Amino acid sequence: MATQITGSTRILGIIGDPIRQVRAPEVWTAMFQRNGVDAVCIPMQVTAAGLNAFLEGAKALRNFAGLIVTIPHKPASLSQVASPSARARHVGAVNVIRVQDDGQWAGDILDGVGFVGGLKARGQRVEGRKALVVGTGGVGTAIAFAIAEAGAAEVAVFDMAEARAADVAARIGKTGVPSRVAAADAGDFDLIVNASPMGMKPDDPLPINLDRLKPGSIVADVVVHPRMTKLLTAAHERGCFVQPGTHMMDAQIASMASFFGFEGGAWSPEAIAQAVAA
Amino acid sequence: MATQITGSTRILGIIGDPIRQVRAPEVWTAMFQRNGVDAVCIPMQVTAAGLNAFLEGAKALRNFAGLIVTIPHKPASLSQVASPSARARHVGAVNVIRVQDDGQWAGDILDGVGFVGGLKARGQRVEGRKALVVGTGGVGTAIAFAIAEAGAAEVAVFDMAEARAADVAARIGKTGVPSRVAAADAGDFDLIVNASPMGMKPDDPLPINLDRLKPGSIVADVVVHPRMTKLLTAAHERGCFVQPGTHMMDAQIASMASFFGFEGGAWSPEAIAQAVAA
Repeated sequence: MATQITGSTRILGIIGDPIRQVRAPEVWTAMFQRNGVDAVCIPMQVTAAGLNAFLEGAKALRNFAGLIVTIPHKPASLSQVASPSARARHVGAVNVIRVQDDGQWAGDILDGVGFVGGLKARGQRVEGRKALVVGTGGVGTAIAFAIAEAGAAEVAVFDMAEARAADVAARIGKTGVPSRVAAADAGDFDLIVNASPMGMKPDDPLPINLDRLKPGSIVADVVVHPRMTKLLTAAHERGCFVQPGTHMMDAQIASMASFFGFEGGAWSPEAIAQAVAA
Repeated sequence: MATQITGSTRILGIIGDPIRQVRAPEVWTAMFQRNGVDAVCIPMQVTAAGLNAFLEGAKALRNFAGLIVTIPHKPASLSQVASPSARARHVGAVNVIRVQDDGQWAGDILDGVGFVGGLKARGQRVEGRKALVVGTGGVGTAIAFAIAEAGAAEVAVFDMAEARAADVAARIGKTGVPSRVAAADAGDFDLIVNASPMGMKPDDPLPINLDRLKPGSIVADVVVHPRMTKLLTAAHERGCFVQPGTHMMDAQIASMASFFGFEGGAWSPEAIAQAVAA
């Protein structure tokens, strides 16, 4: 993808640690070019120890559209955000932030919106499903809340950090949707989501036991590389509908573009596919 | 110039305010591509009020090659640099900084090196000349010191801020080269340098009185846009050798690449011309 950077180019950063694996620089830079926006998306590897100082310093940048926030910074960034959305407060994390006119950060979390939107765009329904979300970090919590909001019959969660899972289940329960801590076992559910990093490495074990996986279930992963994780491959072999992690990202790009103030143009998953292929 | 940005791309920033006018993003990004370096140069508009917080925060970036520093941040950035070069201490400013292994900034100022190198590369001698430098900000001071070090017979300086000019003259004098504060008048000199921003705007007056300009003099400008300022056009018409601001920049890129640790490849003014034209 060809792009031109000049003194008038605006910057959209993505912060995480590690950062090499992120797709955002390629996807966003291609979309900026397709939509005639003079901006580029830049990877910024920020350590957890340096996060607060970095976010404080980044307020001084005047040609800066904002930041996409990824692992492990989503929960910690929330505390630097003076104006989080109601959704971000619920989830306890942000994945997009921008500096407001008053010089303070505003933030939102769009992972869950993107996750549910990605399923719906592919003709799947969330309403009435019994869901299991494995991993209750920033992404998993956002997805669990969004599934609950979209009308799931139940949202169970699992995390190796048991207290964190219990906390998320309790908070979802307060929204009126049944929620509980469950084992990482697909048997009782028909919407199964891996929101943990397990599956990124070739020798990772399956994050969820699929022995009792029911046909007709949806199995989704947030892992982007590889596109087809072991989990998705196994679920596909059993006839389940599978959703790779790229759909969650691509389905939230329009919401992110609006948050950052990139108006006009096309930001749909179809436009992204065309732009990245160009 | 086509380039590809991915999660593994390293970042070279240029900080200034304003920033739209800088050539560095185009020049460096073209050079990175020519030399097979996975990096891009990004404009970062940082306010003077936000400089210290920005530099503190930027220490947290792990995929960061460093920063080129331009107007108005060269003198103020020096105070954030734990390890300035002897040259930077002399000049009282930096134009390149990078984070060291100990997490602190190192810095150097290469404008003067580039200015003298640019003249020499075009077959001009500095030795024995009587020089006038108009403007004693970061760039002007760097140029004045470098001209003195290159063997000028005298280095006179002028600045509307008289105390600043007197300070620079006194500090150059301590290096053993005669120096004094002079008027902005070419008459007494045969190496005349505009190191002020005058000439960037179409209706700026001439920064230096050329009524008594001697044939055979060198007249140089640090202004980059327009390439041929009113000053250079007038000097050219009188048969003087003229040096546009781009030469100072292009002649210091090899020194900057070395400072930032970009090893191998070609970084000469000729390579730059080829890369930018590509």
